[in-house]
Amino acid sequence: METSLKRIKEDIEKISSFNATPGHGITRFSYSPEDKQAREYFMQQFELLGLKVKVDGVGNIRARLGGADPDLPVVMSGSHIDTVLHGGKFDGVVGSVGALEVVRTLVDSNIKTKHPVEVVIFVEEEGSNFGSSMAGSKAMIGKYKLKDIKSIKNDKGISMYEMAKNFGLDPDKIEADVIKPDEIKAMIELHVEQGGVLDDEKISIGIVEAIAGSKWFKIEFEGVPNHAGATPMHLRQDPMAAASKVIAEVEKITKQKAFSTTVGTVGKIICQPNIPNCIPEKVMFTVDVRDVLPKGIEIVVSEVKKIVESVAKENKVKASIELMGESDAIKLSKKVVDVIEQNAIRLAIDHRRMNSGAVHDSSLLASVTDVGMIFVPSINGRSHVPEEKTDFEDIKLGCDLLLAAILDLANYRNTIKMQ
Amino acid sequence: METSLKRIKEDIEKISSFNATPGHGITRFSYSPEDKQAREYFMQQFELLGLKVKVDGVGNIRARLGGADPDLPVVMSGSHIDTVLHGGKFDGVVGSVGALEVVRTLVDSNIKTKHPVEVVIFVEEEGSNFGSSMAGSKAMIGKYKLKDIKSIKNDKGISMYEMAKNFGLDPDKIEADVIKPDEIKAMIELHVEQGGVLDDEKISIGIVEAIAGSKWFKIEFEGVPNHAGATPMHLRQDPMAAASKVIAEVEKITKQKAFSTTVGTVGKIICQPNIPNCIPEKVMFTVDVRDVLPKGIEIVVSEVKKIVESVAKENKVKASIELMGESDAIKLSKKVVDVIEQNAIRLAIDHRRMNSGAVHDSSLLASVTDVGMIFVPSINGRSHVPEEKTDFEDIKLGCDLLLAAILDLANYRNTIKMQ
Repeated sequence: METSLKRIKEDIEKISSFNATPGHGITRFSYSPEDKQAREYFMQQFELLGLKVKVDGVGNIRARLGGADPDLPVVMSGSHIDTVLHGGKFDGVVGSVGALEVVRTLVDSNIKTKHPVEVVIFVEEEGSNFGSSMAGSKAMIGKYKLKDIKSIKNDKGISMYEMAKNFGLDPDKIEADVIKPDEIKAMIELHVEQGGVLDDEKISIGIVEAIAGSKWFKIEFEGVPNHAGATPMHLRQDPMAAASKVIAEVEKITKQKAFSTTVGTVGKIICQPNIPNCIPEKVMFTVDVRDVLPKGIEIVVSEVKKIVESVAKENKVKASIELMGESDAIKLSKKVVDVIEQNAIRLAIDHRRMNSGAVHDSSLLASVTDVGMIFVPSINGRSHVPEEKTDFEDIKLGCDLLLAAILDLANYRNTIKMQ
Repeated sequence: METSLKRIKEDIEKISSFNATPGHGITRFSYSPEDKQAREYFMQQFELLGLKVKVDGVGNIRARLGGADPDLPVVMSGSHIDTVLHGGKFDGVVGSVGALEVVRTLVDSNIKTKHPVEVVIFVEEEGSNFGSSMAGSKAMIGKYKLKDIKSIKNDKGISMYEMAKNFGLDPDKIEADVIKPDEIKAMIELHVEQGGVLDDEKISIGIVEAIAGSKWFKIEFEGVPNHAGATPMHLRQDPMAAASKVIAEVEKITKQKAFSTTVGTVGKIICQPNIPNCIPEKVMFTVDVRDVLPKGIEIVVSEVKKIVESVAKENKVKASIELMGESDAIKLSKKVVDVIEQNAIRLAIDHRRMNSGAVHDSSLLASVTDVGMIFVPSINGRSHVPEEKTDFEDIKLGCDLLLAAILDLANYRNTIKMQ
């Protein structure tokens, strides 16, 4: 029994056709007309397979294939179908199609697992509408309450609550829809890696052990804007010179003083007034630090704070550091990781254990159930761009491994035991 | 005989009232309604003094006080009255009012110099309209021809030619209006320093010996945009990390490897896509290098090029360096500088010789006549900002020194001889 490369490919291409920006990557925000089309496509497939579908107040879809014992907790798999602006066709879609294909294979093969199996399609993972990522899974586990979905708003001031309502959903019931730990036995999410490790090492499958925690900061230096020609070097209070030293150190500290799992990124910089012949007045930049090991984040943050202080003195500029957000590292379920790995060995699929630098819907589910993740390679590590690509052969391997792991977790086979 | 603090102050305050952005510094672009008001104010003053006024095709004003020998070349003084967006009230205005006040003092005191004395008010020094600085003085010396003023355009696509025409001028005659070397004996421009040297050293007067030359570059690094969490440090091609090292080196090289006269500035940076959790795709920044010693510029440029090459290799990014503009250093007239300095000594005005890091209309006039410049302090070195400030007492000292130097150059006194 195996999944179908042809069907996987057709599904992914079909969903990619629901796109607000043809020719400029894929853009499919939650609650958009393209999202509606993609959701309808999944709904048709679920209906064909005879699944029992439930849509919660914000639009997360749960489609259940009943088990031999319908009262047992479900084994869940799925991902999201929303994208960033001008994103690619694989991120999120691979795991959504993968879960559909697993259930389709089970139905086609007339397989009845002991536990029910559920396909989940999360809404609003990317935060494209409201700037808040994983809003759908946050609502599903009860981390976002009614007041939260009323308070997060898009650029036009429309809340997630209003948008869900306008989309034909019933957001008032989200708190009643919260998933209960005893409803669910395990969750496995298939996803593209979004980094370049698997592609670099030419390995088809990554088995995720941990999801990195993160802290991100806004650092601002304020100096004295002056004429670039008329101000001698010793009289300058130049925030750009100060910023450049900190940014250069972010890379150096992360590489040399932290761990191989630590990453530090400056992705945004704003300079004022941003004129070639003017010593700037203000330079603001962000520092994003992530690691599965909290110690790695702490090393970088403490060293960056030291260097900010010393360059502020050196360049006679004012400095401020503001923590903008943080999330804890999450260790995935050893039991689920072992099930996935032993099936990879059994199926002779080349694989490695690894960490996820990105956060996923599964990170949220990890607070209510045993979670595992399967990564497939992102070619050149590209993601969230039109060039995002994963070989369909690798996606099929990921689906086959997902199928095998789900069969074990749903107690069809008993090669690997879970308590 | 001395200039009048009261009149200087009144003139400067009056001209500052012609302002497009009250409450947000001074904004007075050439050819604007505020410029028209300021020009009319000067015209009224010139008329009261009985000066002979000539306006050239782009609007430069030359107002002549006849000398004992009307056929002798003129001694010229003046500056510009246009500002940057949200600039201050001293830059340019000080030298324009200073020249007016000198002539007013001569007329009031019934002084007849041998050479005629001319007040000059240049248009469009700042480049605020067309992005081309000193466009007025360039036209006056014939460096800008008719085709040039037709080709430089503002943001709305309107050329300097059209704008001058709409302002009631006759730009078709600019080439006939070009100043001839035998019309002019010398030029002295009084100006605010725009740097902080005089203020830092508590000296009232700077006598400019040379105007720095400059080169400015656009440097761009292109890397591979990727997820900030999912891409390990060793797989990154991060243009921001590369840029930061170059920017930090610009300061270090300029301070440590070049001369005390060399300045290097990064005033502008653009990052794409500029998202906190994305390793950037492209980072572009400018490097502005200036020195009165060409060797100083060359040292910085050659070292910057080396570091660009080495960080491009280190961070595996593509690099490009584009020269966007350059100007040669200009040595001002030793004769005029000596006249100014000997008068400063005679009048017991504290002064120092110095260089100008900024370029001025006088830089252009230096190609047709003997030029000198007198600087007065910019408090905290601030210029081109609403906070721009110079003590009126210092401006008066500058005017008195300008008056004394003009009397010598126009052969009223013969304390100092020019050939």
